Amino acid sequence: MSPPTAFPPAPDVTAPDTWHFRHQVRIYWEDTDAGGIVFYGNYLKYMERARTEWLSALGFSQERLRNGGEGMFVVGETHLRYIKPARLDDMLTVTVRLVELGRATIAFVQEVWRGDTLLTQGRVRIGWVAPFEDHFKPARIPAQILAILPTPNPKPSELDHP
Amino acid sequence: MSPPTAFPPAPDVTAPDTWHFRHQVRIYWEDTDAGGIVFYGNYLKYMERARTEWLSALGFSQERLRNGGEGMFVVGETHLRYIKPARLDDMLTVTVRLVELGRATIAFVQEVWRGDTLLTQGRVRIGWVAPFEDHFKPARIPAQILAILPTPNPKPSELDHP
Amino acid sequence: MSPPTAFPPAPDVTAPDTWHFRHQVRIYWEDTDAGGIVFYGNYLKYMERARTEWLSALGFSQERLRNGGEGMFVVGETHLRYIKPARLDDMLTVTVRLVELGRATIAFVQEVWRGDTLLTQGRVRIGWVAPFEDHFKPARIPAQILAILPTPNPKPSELDHP
Amino acid sequence: MSPPTAFPPAPDVTAPDTWHFRHQVRIYWEDTDAGGIVFYGNYLKYMERARTEWLSALGFSQERLRNGGEGMFVVGETHLRYIKPARLDDMLTVTVRLVELGRATIAFVQEVWRGDTLLTQGRVRIGWVAPFEDHFKPARIPAQILAILPTPNPKPSELDHP
Repeated sequence: MSPPTAFPPAPDVTAPDTWHFRHQVRIYWEDTDAGGIVFYGNYLKYMERARTEWLSALGFSQERLRNGGEGMFVVGETHLRYIKPARLDDMLTVTVRLVELGRATIAFVQEVWRGDTLLTQGRVRIGWVAPFEDHFKPARIPAQILAILPTPNPKPSELDHP
Repeated sequence: MSPPTAFPPAPDVTAPDTWHFRHQVRIYWEDTDAGGIVFYGNYLKYMERARTEWLSALGFSQERLRNGGEGMFVVGETHLRYIKPARLDDMLTVTVRLVELGRATIAFVQEVWRGDTLLTQGRVRIGWVAPFEDHFKPARIPAQILAILPTPNPKPSELDHP
Repeated sequence: MSPPTAFPPAPDVTAPDTWHFRHQVRIYWEDTDAGGIVFYGNYLKYMERARTEWLSALGFSQERLRNGGEGMFVVGETHLRYIKPARLDDMLTVTVRLVELGRATIAFVQEVWRGDTLLTQGRVRIGWVAPFEDHFKPARIPAQILAILPTPNPKPSELDHP
Repeated sequence: MSPPTAFPPAPDVTAPDTWHFRHQVRIYWEDTDAGGIVFYGNYLKYMERARTEWLSALGFSQERLRNGGEGMFVVGETHLRYIKPARLDDMLTVTVRLVELGRATIAFVQEVWRGDTLLTQGRVRIGWVAPFEDHFKPARIPAQILAILPTPNPKPSELDHP
């Protein structure tokens, strides 16, 4: 399990050319619930933001792919454990580790940290869908995208082997 | 694996043939914030839900209009006053009053009530946009839609004259 | 200013005295994303809504428990598979099946259906937390709550044995 | 009407000791709807984020105020105009201009820009509430907070005089 980055002003990006990435997320009122903590459903959003910034750092524009009619990534499976809560005003670090790269799907292990405290761990699998008649259907990830994606690191982690 | 229930038999609708409509909204954890009350930004969602059910009761399917390439309604202006807070587990009533019907825009006065307590008042203006090249641009509301919309009731209210 | 309607007479409930429950969810603009489908992160909300209505049908008020200082349920783990997408205007059925009932945690298997099409499957584990100094910590579920909860049905399902 | 900031790597903060402030917001999937654009209700969130960062830059921790039992700011009124849509992957600039500073309420004019294109304009009024028995009620803004808030700039703008 990788140690978290330092708090800002640490950069929002680490080693975008590899299988690992970090992204900072600030917690606002919109993120919290009446329990006084971050609504657990929002961690999926933070992990999505981090993956989007990772793709962006690799040179992908999801909006351009979507508008170009080539297809898009969709989330197929999410498995998250909520260990400790985040709170209003927190600055969190969300990690992205590419762990599997198949012809049609990609898997990530992602963690959310506040300083050196692990708050949430998750595994997210995404797939590629391409336009088919009036909707989208699962398809192979385009070769030009596969060519740019880094080699995954399937290093076992606690979450991989529950 | 159990089969799902049938669609709900009793519509959540009052007087769909007029300029007025009501819709019930339950408050869940997702709706609240760390202040222990409903996040104010969510009232826009409840008002949207009520307008959607009103359109649906009038026979419109927004998804069919959108997919049919005819265009869609977009929100142009919202003016809301948050008077008293809603809380977890509350059951709210959201009203829709059509107050203006122009060739390109429609205006509503909407209120959110918990029992006989007024929580939020708002005025919402929506406009019609039609496909134009690769995007959408403002356009006249199609005649077949105008023909079905009820006559507005521009009766002055406290919100209309702040 | 018009008076609000009365509370809805017909509860959205099926067999609240058992380990199984169903809840209807309508899809609005707020639920969708630029892919033209429901944002996957929102299925956690629909499952939460269904569990809340199940608790409510059993006689629990989460707001009263929270304000009474006795504690509250928090989500500890979620594992969801997104099989087919939901779209604007869809009416979905969300199921709740209680599968495990421990002294500190409860587990559910939940599914989201559109008619007879299975869209999403998930397993959700929640735990009880009680006030401790200035925060909450995991604790045994209070006896008066355990006494009301139905006997779980751990019947194997496709999701239980992936 | 103030000109927008340059795109990043421009700093996330401008002149925190004055009545004006800027904050960058990235658009992710979670922000969009089936219209292919940002859901209008989300602009309230972006404006809230910018005000929170402004307060933070002035030295306020909302979480500390809330936990300290002194009270909190709540939003009392929002008036927004949605002029042009934002899209997936956009980087937006959200401005904060303090326009009124009363004993119990504060008002802001806020704008959302993409480069030199104005997308949304709004006026937001917030009030202070203090604990009273088991809930919160409107109260004067504490003197130590008023002492730190900058002098407002009520300079007329297009939105102030519709």
